[in-house]
Amino acid sequence: MNNLTRTSFKIDSGELFVLDQRKLPQEELWVKASDPQVMCELIKSLAVRGAPLIGVAAALALGLNAKRVSREVWLNNAKILRSARPTAVNLMHAVDRLTKISPEGEAWSEMVAVEAEKIALEDIDLCLRLAQKGASLINDGDQIITHCNAGALATAGVGTALGVITEAARQGKHIHVFVDETRPLLQGARLTCWELNKNNIPHTLICDNMAAYLMQTKKINKIFIGADRIAANGDAANKIGSLGLAISAKYFGVPFYVVAPSTTLDMSCPDGSKILVEERDPQEVSQGKSPKNTPCWNPAFDIIPRNLITDIILA
Amino acid sequence: MNNLTRTSFKIDSGELFVLDQRKLPQEELWVKASDPQVMCELIKSLAVRGAPLIGVAAALALGLNAKRVSREVWLNNAKILRSARPTAVNLMHAVDRLTKISPEGEAWSEMVAVEAEKIALEDIDLCLRLAQKGASLINDGDQIITHCNAGALATAGVGTALGVITEAARQGKHIHVFVDETRPLLQGARLTCWELNKNNIPHTLICDNMAAYLMQTKKINKIFIGADRIAANGDAANKIGSLGLAISAKYFGVPFYVVAPSTTLDMSCPDGSKILVEERDPQEVSQGKSPKNTPCWNPAFDIIPRNLITDIILA
Repeated sequence: MNNLTRTSFKIDSGELFVLDQRKLPQEELWVKASDPQVMCELIKSLAVRGAPLIGVAAALALGLNAKRVSREVWLNNAKILRSARPTAVNLMHAVDRLTKISPEGEAWSEMVAVEAEKIALEDIDLCLRLAQKGASLINDGDQIITHCNAGALATAGVGTALGVITEAARQGKHIHVFVDETRPLLQGARLTCWELNKNNIPHTLICDNMAAYLMQTKKINKIFIGADRIAANGDAANKIGSLGLAISAKYFGVPFYVVAPSTTLDMSCPDGSKILVEERDPQEVSQGKSPKNTPCWNPAFDIIPRNLITDIILA
Repeated sequence: MNNLTRTSFKIDSGELFVLDQRKLPQEELWVKASDPQVMCELIKSLAVRGAPLIGVAAALALGLNAKRVSREVWLNNAKILRSARPTAVNLMHAVDRLTKISPEGEAWSEMVAVEAEKIALEDIDLCLRLAQKGASLINDGDQIITHCNAGALATAGVGTALGVITEAARQGKHIHVFVDETRPLLQGARLTCWELNKNNIPHTLICDNMAAYLMQTKKINKIFIGADRIAANGDAANKIGSLGLAISAKYFGVPFYVVAPSTTLDMSCPDGSKILVEERDPQEVSQGKSPKNTPCWNPAFDIIPRNLITDIILA
């Protein structure tokens, strides 16, 4: 597999390394992740996250693994990785592309590796096209809200929603980004702010529950978010908190855009009610701050109905 | 001053003690707070919080202080306490009641102390009346959302919004309470869950950004919140996040109630746009989790327009 260095991962001398996103922004720790079972744990624990990235990262780990184990073991690894997280469909799409490759002949493992690399390169390309398309919607002076992290850390490329924002800034548009911290795991506070700092884009961190008041009191021009799965009717699953943000945007008349690569589309899913929403460890919510006897609910995503979305930017 | 023991404070042998709410639920620490300057710091740092309680606590500290210092020093203490926090109007109302007392004659300091005790007892009474009135709206089996803490820890009595909920449970109604954690300072996670545990009321903690998804997927019957100031037109200031919750409630058709004692009404304020919203230390938002260069915005309250409120329960 060719060497490749991205924000969120790198391939170096036939091994795959990922940036451990649990440690950001305090520490930039690279972890070896060539082994599919290691990758599975990294995805489950959100060291590797973001719908497009987990598809790419899983594919690359399987691409490297194909030469190292029997096809039977490899297929089992693929199966385990495919179910690491249930909501993002990119992961399933990516794994299915590899397991569909016909096992006839010696070239099989090479074909799997090449297909995995193609998945990564396609995501880079899709991100660039999304960025171009979306940036044209942003005007000089715009104030923008984003939720969670849909940037270079969530993809193999420049990102989806945050890629759009970064591209607008790169084009010289003066923008200000308000970043939802994104409880419980603070992907906005930790990851999106890390990326915006790296790109020198003016931004302000807020708690998720401040977004409505922000729209009430300051001029917010647009909201851009990513997606983990988009159903055939246009309903979109995204990080928990996206629905409330979309409802407030509608109330205040703020245009609300979902930005996603075509790998996020699930045409087999008729509408949002059919999307399985992952529920994660209640400890992520309580974090030892609430009384021990208090139970917590921790859905990782919610579903934005199509009628709350101004436009879905796809590439 | 008579001895009095409440959830949030106690008067014992002529001294005032408050439960340090920054330490809950891990520790129940009582702090001596008879000195108005000490009380001022306790209010600013949220050791003592909740619109009705800060009015009562400030009044009691001033009531004790009147006998101990000259009237000139006392008036200055009153002035400092009155401006400890700018949004809740109960504090201003309570201090104004004491400073209005005519200084003629030796009985002045005694009159101030008696008036301060009256303010505390009135709040206890108002809470009981709110609880009765509000509990009649709750049906057996109701699932309820509340935000921040509007309970015994926020008042001298049984609370406002949470007092209503507690009273319904006391009447034998089987209810389930979903508690918004209330970022950035987690008054929901720490304080409301502490109270609900003490009262054996079934409840579940959620992140603020999960409330919309909760209304989308589970049957939520009602929302009850407190208020820090209610303008003449019925717009209400309450803990940041209340506005987004109210917008989502309207979207999903969930009745949204504001519960407050009459001391929270500010008839001199025509509408919500005239309410001064306190902005607090950005560190409360970042908590060392986001990059150092990232600025934060930290408004402590937001304004719920009257048309998003099903009814204001007043006593």
